[in-house]
Amino acid sequence: MNVEFVNPFLSSLLNVLSTMAMVELKPGKPRVKKDEVARGDVSGLIGMVGPQTKGSFSISFDEGLALDIMARMLGERPDSINEEVTDMVGEITNMVTGGAKKLLGEKGYEFDMATPMVVSGKGHTIGHKTEGAIVLMPFEGEAGNAHIEICFDKDA
Amino acid sequence: MNVEFVNPFLSSLLNVLSTMAMVELKPGKPRVKKDEVARGDVSGLIGMVGPQTKGSFSISFDEGLALDIMARMLGERPDSINEEVTDMVGEITNMVTGGAKKLLGEKGYEFDMATPMVVSGKGHTIGHKTEGAIVLMPFEGEAGNAHIEICFDKDA
Repeated sequence: MNVEFVNPFLSSLLNVLSTMAMVELKPGKPRVKKDEVARGDVSGLIGMVGPQTKGSFSISFDEGLALDIMARMLGERPDSINEEVTDMVGEITNMVTGGAKKLLGEKGYEFDMATPMVVSGKGHTIGHKTEGAIVLMPFEGEAGNAHIEICFDKDA
Repeated sequence: MNVEFVNPFLSSLLNVLSTMAMVELKPGKPRVKKDEVARGDVSGLIGMVGPQTKGSFSISFDEGLALDIMARMLGERPDSINEEVTDMVGEITNMVTGGAKKLLGEKGYEFDMATPMVVSGKGHTIGHKTEGAIVLMPFEGEAGNAHIEICFDKDA
């Protein structure tokens, strides 16, 4: 996958989190995901469908980071991952993908988004089942880590 | 959501599993998912995008049922949910949604499918984040249970 496809998701995530929650994340090095498995405690997932390609995007948060984002947005930290937290993760998933869609649309890459889904469960893993490469990008935060995964079914 | 939208997924699932693995599932009563949370050990998820609506579909399996399906397909039962199992769950997700897409297309409801994602992790839960109703349908199998969840963002 072209780096042109990855950067819009990266910059959209940093923008969404700093705007919504004043949380700054430090992006790590993007890499092609092979056997390596990234785990999270709560993840947002969304499907993408375009005229030439289709794919999927996910963002996984450590519990500590997800609760910290909630605390900064609402002024109160929930005890655990509840429905308010999964709603917020769904909203972040939608906003990050929507931001990336806008940036990619400006470059002539069009896609539509499905509705987001949110998975919760300690240390779950996500596999994107496509023929194209899966790009994994880690992010480090003060309260925990996040990672995003992006794939399209053709190596664009 | 109209029952017209649910039945194609139901019949497609029964068809896929009996054809691929000679596994027969007994469908339970579909219901609108509210607070009630369905859990699974491995789940396939896929986004759907149509001209008038968008949505998401998921299918979750108990570990025992997922391993039984693998055993029936390959003649050998894996010890745990490995990448072969998640590949199979992704394939089932694709086939079930593809079958439903065909049936719904014949009725004039068109949508395109994104690529499937597979989540694994003991007892994870899935939330579909849309404004429309989420229909949850349980299935009982000899080796364990499955359930599917379907939602579209507008109550079609």
